[in-house]
Formats: sequence, C-alpha cells, structure tokens
Amino acid sequence: MSVRLETKYLAPFVREEEVDFLFPQVEAAHRLLETANGPGSDYVGWLKLPRDYDKSEFARIKNAAAKIAKGSDVLVVIGIGGSYLGARAVIEAVKSAQYNLKPNGRPQIFFAGSSVSGAALNDVLELCEGKDVSVNIISKSGTTTEPAVAFRVFRDWLVAKYGVEGAKERIFATTDGAKGTLKELAGREGYETFVVPDDIGGRYSVLTAVGLLPLAVAGVDIDALMAGAAQAMDALSVCDKTNDCYRWAALRNILYRKGKTVEVLACYEPDFALMNEWYKQLFGESEGKDQKGIFPASVVFTTDLHSMGQYLQDGRRQLFETVVDVKNPRSDRVIEPAAEDFDGLNYLAGKALSDVNRAAMQGTVLAHADGGVPVLVLEVDSLGEHDLGYLIYFMEKACALSGYLLGVNPFNQPGVESYKQNMFALLGKPGYEAQRQQLLGRLATE
Amino acid sequence: MSVRLETKYLAPFVREEEVDFLFPQVEAAHRLLETANGPGSDYVGWLKLPRDYDKSEFARIKNAAAKIAKGSDVLVVIGIGGSYLGARAVIEAVKSAQYNLKPNGRPQIFFAGSSVSGAALNDVLELCEGKDVSVNIISKSGTTTEPAVAFRVFRDWLVAKYGVEGAKERIFATTDGAKGTLKELAGREGYETFVVPDDIGGRYSVLTAVGLLPLAVAGVDIDALMAGAAQAMDALSVCDKTNDCYRWAALRNILYRKGKTVEVLACYEPDFALMNEWYKQLFGESEGKDQKGIFPASVVFTTDLHSMGQYLQDGRRQLFETVVDVKNPRSDRVIEPAAEDFDGLNYLAGKALSDVNRAAMQGTVLAHADGGVPVLVLEVDSLGEHDLGYLIYFMEKACALSGYLLGVNPFNQPGVESYKQNMFALLGKPGYEAQRQQLLGRLATE
Repeated sequence: MSVRLETKYLAPFVREEEVDFLFPQVEAAHRLLETANGPGSDYVGWLKLPRDYDKSEFARIKNAAAKIAKGSDVLVVIGIGGSYLGARAVIEAVKSAQYNLKPNGRPQIFFAGSSVSGAALNDVLELCEGKDVSVNIISKSGTTTEPAVAFRVFRDWLVAKYGVEGAKERIFATTDGAKGTLKELAGREGYETFVVPDDIGGRYSVLTAVGLLPLAVAGVDIDALMAGAAQAMDALSVCDKTNDCYRWAALRNILYRKGKTVEVLACYEPDFALMNEWYKQLFGESEGKDQKGIFPASVVFTTDLHSMGQYLQDGRRQLFETVVDVKNPRSDRVIEPAAEDFDGLNYLAGKALSDVNRAAMQGTVLAHADGGVPVLVLEVDSLGEHDLGYLIYFMEKACALSGYLLGVNPFNQPGVESYKQNMFALLGKPGYEAQRQQLLGRLATE
Repeated sequence: MSVRLETKYLAPFVREEEVDFLFPQVEAAHRLLETANGPGSDYVGWLKLPRDYDKSEFARIKNAAAKIAKGSDVLVVIGIGGSYLGARAVIEAVKSAQYNLKPNGRPQIFFAGSSVSGAALNDVLELCEGKDVSVNIISKSGTTTEPAVAFRVFRDWLVAKYGVEGAKERIFATTDGAKGTLKELAGREGYETFVVPDDIGGRYSVLTAVGLLPLAVAGVDIDALMAGAAQAMDALSVCDKTNDCYRWAALRNILYRKGKTVEVLACYEPDFALMNEWYKQLFGESEGKDQKGIFPASVVFTTDLHSMGQYLQDGRRQLFETVVDVKNPRSDRVIEPAAEDFDGLNYLAGKALSDVNRAAMQGTVLAHADGGVPVLVLEVDSLGEHDLGYLIYFMEKACALSGYLLGVNPFNQPGVESYKQNMFALLGKPGYEAQRQQLLGRLATE
C-alpha cells in the first residue's frame, strides 16, 4: 500500500464514533461519485483514467517526448492552473526542486504563460537564448489570456530561429480533441496534438496528456506513475471505514464542522513544495465555493517550523494539519563525527539525515497535537513515480468526496470567471464596452 | 513615497470611523514601541537600524562580498528561518526568481541547512561539484540543528578541496558578537565574522549582516536598500492617521476582530514569491501566539487565480487580502499583433504585459470585493533595492504594531521550542532521557 492514513494523533479531537455517525454521508458521496449522479458528474473521467486511458495516445506521448528530448535543450511548457501545476509538481517531487540546475541529459523544462509578468516571461526567453527549444502549449480553448500571450511570443521566437516549417516541428499542442482556437490552429499548421479530455477538469488533469508529455520529457517514468494511480484506483474503490482515502475525507469534514476551517498540508521534503501548490489548487478550487470550504494552506518543514511553526504551535486554533510523511527520501546522508565535537552534534554521528528528519516530524506531530492542533498523517512510501501516482489518485478521490460531503459541486469553478470578465472589460475587449465604463467609474471613485 | 496604502476597496467592510475608534489603541502601541516599554522591547533594535547600523561592519561586508564574488562560483548560505528567508527573498525580488539560472557574472547563491532533507542537501553538494565555493554560515548560537548539520558537511567539503588553511579563507560566519559555539569556533579558526545583533530577532534581521552579506554577493545594492529603509524610518515615525503603515496595522486588526482571521498577501510578480514567505514568517511568528493571530497565507497572481482564485472569490468568508501592487516591474514586453488574429488577442496588440497585469489586478480587486473579500492595496513603486528597503521597514513596523494591537509580545517565539525539545529527546540527546521514554511510549501507543 503506497499511502496509509495514521489517525492516532487525532484522539483528543475526534472520537471514532464520529466517523461512524458521518459514514452514511460518506456512503452517499461515494454513490454520487460512482454512479456519476452528483453535481458536476460530467467531469469524473479521472475516476477510471488510470486504466481507461488512450493507449495509442500514451504511446504517441512517449514518442513525442523522445523526439523533444533528442532535439531540444529546453522544453517551454505554456499553460496555467491545471495546465501548469501538475507537471511542475511531479517533476520536482520525483526528480528535484533543482531539476533545471542539475544537468541530467534531459531538456530543461521552463514554464511560461502561468502569469502575466513581463519580467517572468523575459527571464524564460533569456534562458532560451542560444539553446534548441521546443514548446508544449497546453490550453483547452487556446484563448486563456496568460498562455495565449506567451504562446504568441514563443511561436514568433521559434519561427525567427527555425523558420515557419521548422517551428511547426517544435510545437506540440495539448488541447481540445475536436474544437477551439488552438485545435484549429494546430490543424492548419500541422502541429502534433494531444487531447485535454472533455470529462476531466484542469485540476484533475495531471495524468492526462496535459501532465504526461512534459513529465516524459523530463524523464519521469509515466508508466510507473499510471501504474501507481491504477493501484490506488483498485485499492480505494470500496466504500468502508478501512478505506484511508474515505477516512481522510470524512475526518477533514468532521474537523471543518468543528471550526477547524484551515488545513495546513505539511511535508518534510523541499521537493514536495510544488505538490503543496497542486494540492491547494485541487482542494481550494473544488471545495471553496458557496461561501464554504476548508482554506488550504501549506508548509515545508523543518524550514517553516522556523517561520509558520510558532503560529501552528500556539496561534489561533482554527486549523488542522495533514502531514505527508515520506518514508524513503530520494537520497540520504550519514552525519559524520567531528573532532572535539565543536558544535555539540556528535550525539547525532552515525545517524542519517532521514533519521533526524523523522524525529523532527514525530516531535512536531506530538508538539502540535499538545498545542491543540488535530494532526492527520499520510504515510507515503516514497516520492518515486509509482507512489506519487498512488498519492495523486488518493488525493483526487478524497477531494471529490470532500466536495460532496460539504454539499458543493467539486468539479466546477464559477468564481474564476469573475476577475476574467472584469479584466476583459478593463482591457477594452470588444463586447465589454458597457461593463468597461462602469468599472472605470468604480476604480476612479471608490 | 515608496509605499502607499489604498483603502478605497474596504468601504463595504470598514467605516473610517472604525479607524478613529481604534486609534487610541494604535497610539498606545506606538508608545510601547517608541519608548521600548512593551513586551519584548529588548528586541526593537531594528527600529533605528536603517540609520544606526555599524558603518565599519557595513564596509567589511562589502569587502567580504567582493572577495567572495571574485574567488567563488558559488556562495552556499547556511541558515534557517530569519537566517535564510530574508536574503533569498530580496535576491529573488530584486534580481529574479531565476537568479541561479541566469549567468550574471556573480556567484550562484545556494541555500542549505534550511531543512533536514538529505535529498536537498545532496542536491546543493552536487551543484557545487567542480566549482569554487565559499560558505556563509549564519547562526546566532551555532547549535541550531539544521544549519549546524549542514555546516559540518560543507566545512568538510571545503577542507577536502582547499585544505585546512584554504577553507578558513572561504568560511564567513555571521553569529553572536561575543559568545556561543559558532563565535568560539570562528575565533579559533580565524573565520571572518559578522554580527547577529542581540536586539534584533531573526525575522527582523534582513537588514543586518544576516541578510546583507549574501545580498551584496548577489550584486544587490545594499546602500540603496538601507537608504530605502531609512526613508521609511523617517516617513513612518509619526503616529497619525495619515501614516499608512499605522493605518494598515489598524485595519488588519479591525478586520481580525470582525472574524477575518486569514490574511492573503497577493502579488502579481512571481519574483515576489519568497517575499511572501518572508512576510509569513514576520507576521506569523509575531502574531501567532496565545491562541490568537491572523493566519498569514499568500498567493502569486495571476498564477494562483487559476488555483486559489475560486476559493478567494467564493469560499468561506473568513479572509481578507493585502495586494502588493508593483507599479514598475523589472522588465516588460509589448504584445505584437498577429496575422489573422489566430488567437483572438489582437485587441491587446500594442499593450504592454504590465498593462494586462494591471487590468488583471484591478479586475480582481473589484471582483473579490464584490465577492465579500475586504481588499487592502499596498502600492509599491518597484521591487528595486530602494523601494524594497522601504517596504521591508514598512512591514516590520506594521507587524510590531499589529502585535501590540493584538495584545501579544510580537518579538518572541516560545512555540518554536516545543518541537525542538521533542526532537532532541527522540534523537537521544544527552539530558533528555526521561522525556525520550515518555515520547516513545506515546508514539507507540497513541
């Protein structure tokens, strides 16, 4: 089993009976999901994805990745939200947060179009100078502002360097399977395309071509990733109290109803930092609606024990923690003895850093529990591909269940449109003239 | 003025009268701070620091930075908490989040000892291979576990590469001015030392040698940084309602008392991401105690509008936002027209990315205010050294005032000890035997 939920530190906060009391609601959530009868059920394609994916596209992804890796020093991945976070998070978790600094015989992977910052875009352009570059543009519609702007820039850059025909060989479009601006452009120009499935939302898309192509380019073993997710799919299919995915969802919901409205996801490996961000999108966008939802926050320990640690230990008791406990880190190191014990650390000599990290984790769990923080622990065997695939599926399913337990549609994101509408109006997009005048008035006088 | 507070979007949430009503408490907080009569007043050295710093040490910092820059491809900065975040945050904000990837004639700066992860430490070692390296060990005591362990490793590495004498020339210790393990070692070995002042806590230390040496090595103009802080010190010294630093502190406190217990700091420049982390340490460690305090969270927009944006727009209404609005980004780019308007973006042609980013910011502020989120805006001229120095001082002073308004000691961090005591016991540190048995029992049975 790649992920195991440890709940013993919850004892002062939640009685086992409370899980029993909630379980009929968990069963109802399970039925909504399994029978695709709940709100947003057009978007549950991720549920069977680890086995029912397009095998021929999967093979094409590997071939495209090999082609990119062979002919490129850099892959620029252009996307935002789910078209950005999943791939970056898995690369950093599996390979290293320093992936781009460590030469490993694979292309560097730079992400663009995930903001509107000119400084950030110009930095990536500077990093591409003198290098052979391919581009993976990821956008269901092709019209999302951030990636569309970045793609204009990189498309021109490729054409300037490789000519019109050469550029086409270096652009890979992950987009709608049938329609949309980017799909049409790709058809006209002859880019190789991959599919953003209709029944899988952005935050659930890391195991589709959206995530898989950049991951394969980075040398992530996508077979193992899918196999891990498939194992989770099988292991987590039955709705009972021994299903740790369901238990986690239930306990999160119980804690929320007790006023623990902030969840802090904590990991002791810095490589997990972007997985924290992936979790925040997954849960924040799924639960945060109708004026409800657990606020998802994150920390990297022990780093942030010297930052957010004080608040977590002793601040306002509105939070609970879920600790991702990685049993086997990517690498380790034994602490050597020092002459004269100049720093007083010789009591650690012969221990591995992983031993010290584990003691820090255990000591912190106990200290935070003593401080009034309910702590849940997700024990994960490693951050290797198989185990990470398992964890991804585990979190995706727990998130969907959490949304149904909360009484929301976990698969839409209506609030994301609000700022976009205002932005279009302020930018003078045709069709938004009336709204523009009104907003300019508010900005001037409010 | 380098930082201006815009409060017009608060109108639906806070009446101006409310600031009047609270102002006697702001004045009381001001007096506690200015007369050094409040709790923790042994740690207000940062208040006058921008003018009353050690000028001869400042000159030594520049000389040491020049020496390091001349003889090193890499500076490894070893520290945790305030001995890590400030320097990294300023380097990324001023130079670039991609600083280490962009060759600029200055050493790369890698941070170590800010976690116990063997994978993270081994990565930095790998990145140092074949390069000339200097080390800046930053620790008041020299015994904090994370940096002490990392320093053992890098000290051995330097000795192996440069010999005992050569290594001494490459180690720079920022530590207590008079006592402690690291101070003693530095004296014995002859390392050049810089001072962590007694009256400035870690989270307030970025404008001391703690931050300044790594910053100077990275080519940050530390004169301009200090000058900006000095300007803020002068501009923000008078306690009245036109003092934006005081107003921000007051409004945060008013919102907290209304149940807005989470603050989300938002910036539209990805280079600001580590400044977000610096803010979280500053405010979280200062306010988060006695079961009180605003929970500090952060986002980078527009990136996270496609992640946390849904929650912010429409989730549980327990939060407010402070937006850092950077008027002049480090670089910019004009959007070019495209033939046939293939992506429908030609309505943006001729606009700069900064125009689009500003429209996104304005549109989001209005949308979030409409969604029930109180939004404060800190307008900052740029992320250049002078303006950033101003912002740092502005936030430091607002944080101290916030702590006094909340009724806590903003300068201690008693909760940080709890996990350390448990960790020492679990690691078998001499003197912790009784506690160890008790904790092992809890881990086994709880």
